[in-house]
Amino acid sequence: MKATLERAVLLKSLGHVQSVVERRNTIPILSNVLLEAGEDGSLRLMATDLDLQVDERVEADVSQAGATTVPAHTFFDIVRKLPEGSQVQLSAAEGKMEVVAGRARFNLQTLPRDDFPVIAEGELPTRFELPAATLRQIIDKTRFAISSEETRYYLMGIFFHVADDKLKAAATDGHRLARVTVEKPEGADGMPDIIVPKKCVGELRKLLDEVEGTVEVSLSGAKVRFGLGSAVLTSKLIDGTFPDYNRVIPTGNDKLLKVDPKSFMDGVDRVATIASEKTRAVKMAVDADKITLSVTSPENGLAVEEVPASYGSDQLEIGFNARYLMDILHEIEGDSVEVHLADAAAPTLLRENDQSQALYVLMPMRV
Amino acid sequence: MKATLERAVLLKSLGHVQSVVERRNTIPILSNVLLEAGEDGSLRLMATDLDLQVDERVEADVSQAGATTVPAHTFFDIVRKLPEGSQVQLSAAEGKMEVVAGRARFNLQTLPRDDFPVIAEGELPTRFELPAATLRQIIDKTRFAISSEETRYYLMGIFFHVADDKLKAAATDGHRLARVTVEKPEGADGMPDIIVPKKCVGELRKLLDEVEGTVEVSLSGAKVRFGLGSAVLTSKLIDGTFPDYNRVIPTGNDKLLKVDPKSFMDGVDRVATIASEKTRAVKMAVDADKITLSVTSPENGLAVEEVPASYGSDQLEIGFNARYLMDILHEIEGDSVEVHLADAAAPTLLRENDQSQALYVLMPMRV
Repeated sequence: MKATLERAVLLKSLGHVQSVVERRNTIPILSNVLLEAGEDGSLRLMATDLDLQVDERVEADVSQAGATTVPAHTFFDIVRKLPEGSQVQLSAAEGKMEVVAGRARFNLQTLPRDDFPVIAEGELPTRFELPAATLRQIIDKTRFAISSEETRYYLMGIFFHVADDKLKAAATDGHRLARVTVEKPEGADGMPDIIVPKKCVGELRKLLDEVEGTVEVSLSGAKVRFGLGSAVLTSKLIDGTFPDYNRVIPTGNDKLLKVDPKSFMDGVDRVATIASEKTRAVKMAVDADKITLSVTSPENGLAVEEVPASYGSDQLEIGFNARYLMDILHEIEGDSVEVHLADAAAPTLLRENDQSQALYVLMPMRV
Repeated sequence: MKATLERAVLLKSLGHVQSVVERRNTIPILSNVLLEAGEDGSLRLMATDLDLQVDERVEADVSQAGATTVPAHTFFDIVRKLPEGSQVQLSAAEGKMEVVAGRARFNLQTLPRDDFPVIAEGELPTRFELPAATLRQIIDKTRFAISSEETRYYLMGIFFHVADDKLKAAATDGHRLARVTVEKPEGADGMPDIIVPKKCVGELRKLLDEVEGTVEVSLSGAKVRFGLGSAVLTSKLIDGTFPDYNRVIPTGNDKLLKVDPKSFMDGVDRVATIASEKTRAVKMAVDADKITLSVTSPENGLAVEEVPASYGSDQLEIGFNARYLMDILHEIEGDSVEVHLADAAAPTLLRENDQSQALYVLMPMRV
């Protein structure tokens, strides 16, 4: 294999693939990135952790086609430190790959290309396109609610499904739920319910930062594939059943509070300063024209802040985890958030308004 | 105590004092910052860890003089989160301090002012002034060589002494030595040799970022005091004897190598990418017109880079810890560094030129 390409191009692409590679691997080849130079003037870079795989193609000046694998993090560190604007020559032969740029030369140990595991995609019968911007929104407005409890592995991802002729994405950790509803894309009919794992969500989100236009999504009940221009991300899905989250979305919360999400969030952040690290509980007392946020901490003292609001029902006191509440408020884009309350023990529903794609449910805390 | 001041003023000053306060304290009052509002319209803020104390004054609108102490990190976090441009009212009474800004109100637990320990300065007979820029240079060019080995506590600071009618500052961890020589300031005659602890050096350096003009230095054999405008930093000194470092500065190194420090550093950084984390050893082979840097790692492979240089003596091979070499090269400001070599086992001397205030000695490694 012999190929030459610009450092910036190689670095950008390596940046994408190396983050899939885990720092510690018991199987040595999983620490490596696959490099494959093609006759057509392309260099393919590929990395995997056996559950998630990224496969990217960049242009290169290929004088000899071929393939090899080298340690991903070391190779990334080397390329990162090469002088800006330099041309990088890669040549692999006899168990080594030579990297030459300017006056620097590296010889890296390689492992055979044939040992590199590739995720077999199998049939991916459901295919549709989503605007990159829509996929970014779906991820941003749900990922914070993904659980990290291994015992409930089926909550450790974003649940995608089609219902009511819409595409819905939901995540929950049992304390809060986030759901985004978007137009059902053409081709999504009859798609199986899938749970996309957290790591895939994270890598996808990074790649989406650099993509305009549309993303090609292909999936089966076991795997999903995201085509983003020159990069393809393939992931196994979480093999489990996502709970019927509709049961926790309250429908009869008749006490409506409206407030500016920014002032609300800042207020919660301030009073939470003195909350104990463990509970992070904030109490809110809701009146006709204001919310009174407060925290009482035996060690630290007392914090109180009033936030102007509009509310038409009976006075109510309710407690929330400050972090969870702020996560939700952070994703509200407009200058008003609707908080639908029932009582101090009932799940509370938050959304921008009745037109908004995103909907959040937050369990209260006793305070 | 009742005082009102602008959030920005309070935040800046709290930023200075809170970093002296350790995160964990067995003595509760050491977690607190002393606040003292004076009749003269000043608010004094003071924090200590019993070895190091910072004492700062800011202007405030004082309606009732008095003093109290509140948890430093909590108070800092609160002020940090208050709205920009807000006025902060502080009022202390009956074991509590109330903080009010805009619609937010906090009640913090206090501890009595009289329990707050103040470092007794005692007599500080040596007094001189140093330009802030000079003190910044002294610290930047020596602090990286400070030891962090508790067993050699007397190396855990910067050693200041007067010799050859100059003020000299040195730090070493046994592997490398950094020394800066500046004009002896007026008043430094007869000053005792002192070792300023690492933590004091760090806090001083932060304060120096905001100071122009001169710093007032007062010291005895046991304590040092730095007056920086509105802030005063007082520290106990390390009670030990700094070794006679002059013995390790080589005087007979007759092989002179000249090289651009930036290319040298970048080259070392690149080849060190594949060095083992443990040794970080880089080999340099010195020829008439170039240095050949190389690292051979059984796990990772081989890295070689040539750096243009000028050298007039016999070919030589020598090894260094890449990190230590880069620390030194990072502090060389010009476009040339002199490397004075003897042989592969002898301490090597580095400096910009024979006029430079800073001088570095680096022990070689067997490679």
